[in-house]
Amino acid sequence: MPHPDTDNSTPAALTLGAVRGAAARITAYVRVTPMLRESSLDKRTGAELEFKAEHLQRGGAFKLRGACNALGSLDPVDLEHGVITHSSGNHGLAVALAAADHGVTAHIVVPEGAIRAKLTRIKAAGAVIYHCAPSLAAREAMVTELLGQTGAHLIHPYADPTVIAGQATVTLELLQQMPDIEALVVPVGGGGLAAGAAIVAATLRPGLQLYLAEPTGAADTALSLQRGERVLDVQPDTICDGLRATLGEPNFKILYAYGAKALTVTDTETLQAMRLLWMELKQVIEPSSATVLAAVLRYHEYFQGRRVGLVLSGGNVDLDALPFHPA
Amino acid sequence: MPHPDTDNSTPAALTLGAVRGAAARITAYVRVTPMLRESSLDKRTGAELEFKAEHLQRGGAFKLRGACNALGSLDPVDLEHGVITHSSGNHGLAVALAAADHGVTAHIVVPEGAIRAKLTRIKAAGAVIYHCAPSLAAREAMVTELLGQTGAHLIHPYADPTVIAGQATVTLELLQQMPDIEALVVPVGGGGLAAGAAIVAATLRPGLQLYLAEPTGAADTALSLQRGERVLDVQPDTICDGLRATLGEPNFKILYAYGAKALTVTDTETLQAMRLLWMELKQVIEPSSATVLAAVLRYHEYFQGRRVGLVLSGGNVDLDALPFHPA
Repeated sequence: MPHPDTDNSTPAALTLGAVRGAAARITAYVRVTPMLRESSLDKRTGAELEFKAEHLQRGGAFKLRGACNALGSLDPVDLEHGVITHSSGNHGLAVALAAADHGVTAHIVVPEGAIRAKLTRIKAAGAVIYHCAPSLAAREAMVTELLGQTGAHLIHPYADPTVIAGQATVTLELLQQMPDIEALVVPVGGGGLAAGAAIVAATLRPGLQLYLAEPTGAADTALSLQRGERVLDVQPDTICDGLRATLGEPNFKILYAYGAKALTVTDTETLQAMRLLWMELKQVIEPSSATVLAAVLRYHEYFQGRRVGLVLSGGNVDLDALPFHPA
Repeated sequence: MPHPDTDNSTPAALTLGAVRGAAARITAYVRVTPMLRESSLDKRTGAELEFKAEHLQRGGAFKLRGACNALGSLDPVDLEHGVITHSSGNHGLAVALAAADHGVTAHIVVPEGAIRAKLTRIKAAGAVIYHCAPSLAAREAMVTELLGQTGAHLIHPYADPTVIAGQATVTLELLQQMPDIEALVVPVGGGGLAAGAAIVAATLRPGLQLYLAEPTGAADTALSLQRGERVLDVQPDTICDGLRATLGEPNFKILYAYGAKALTVTDTETLQAMRLLWMELKQVIEPSSATVLAAVLRYHEYFQGRRVGLVLSGGNVDLDALPFHPA
């Protein structure tokens, strides 16, 4: 349901038309990912769960969609000196892959503590990697320095309108595959996937309930939506390495206008859900992805008897450092 | 290619007609499992790999097909006192699920050392569990004792013709989904899945190369096919808990007549392949399943440039005791 104080001052690029344009632009580079079901999870939750398997996307995460659309939207002259971004993982890998697709250099600033599997893949995609301290300030400082040195074009991980339009194709595709879902649950970090979902739903399914699964240890989106303004001082502390970013400004506006609802889950709940997804759905998904099932389990009263779409956002984990503990 | 010394003395029940009958009999209880692809694995092997995802079958393994066909083929009077089997895991779970579907009691003899995830699921399916020493002799002795006590009907894990016909539906389905594969690789333990594949291929695709992936630590099938007679004295020593059984008599005859070729792989190779399937295909599969990719990697000269079907036989693992070591 749209929020009463709808604020329409979002970028003009963020319309359903832009999303359809993105879908056409990226189609040669990304996969149509399948929807997965597992009756034992339906029984456990009392809902009909339809999982959008973006962990089976190229690069192991939905992020390739936004990166491909961003690079594909740029003038070739803007790509001359390559592209640059900062990312703890999946966005960096996505930019590296999209840059390789376009034959340009990718400069990726990676904070210490990134998942090794993601780092290895970024290197394998041929990107130039720069390490920095694990804070947003350190990331942005190094990007600024490198922008000057390289002349590369910055692809922001989640606030760039072309990135948001690219991520929105996840929801466009999901609604084509499962038009009759009654609720949609996506993880929220910087808010690219989430804002994209709101843009698509606002036009195609304006009554669709949009839920944002967020770790309690990085709950700036829940706070921001509650207060009606962006909260910037949350220090993230969560196992969900893909959800530590601060909600972007356009992302906040879009989600607030749509009336999206944040559902916070603890890391313990996320790990229990992750275990279930591995054991029952037999899918290798990363902690960030598991928040959506954790949210449905914790807030089951919102979902019982309903058909629910859930986005499994990525599947890049370190097999040597899995977070499971004895059940 | 059929073996020159074709021996046709296999049970009359083991024809393509019996397999089609099995497919019809079990359709309400089993899932049509998808085929999965991953271009990075194609690049690595130089082949086009099409994975049949039987780990997404109900119960997490192809075994449900054989168990459902066996129970569904019995006269109701034979089911009166329930069914019994011995199994280290997936067959036991399959019989437990099939028995629950048919409203009868399942007695499952489980050797010590079985995977906990499998044991837990057998219990959850409502079966009565009996523990025994981890040897075929101990398993058979306890089954004989229980047969007398309970009057239950024995469902042999792999030598029963109705079980073989049920497992054969994996290959029937795979050839419907991917009619143009040039080679098929299945894991071999007792040989239910493998013999079923040979029966289907012999009629529908007589030129299809059938490869049996087998752990070097339990290579009785490779030895048996080489010598032209069943080798019974191999002491299994492998991480592949689903492939420790000795090749059954009808299974041997069928595989020998068809000219199936065994490809042995070490546990180290299997674990490397398992890691690849988890990381690249993002699927939770058990070691037994990984032997098929290990075989394609080790014997790549047989597969390069060809379109290859591979059966991922199951995905029941203990998350707390994963066999991965640093890459």
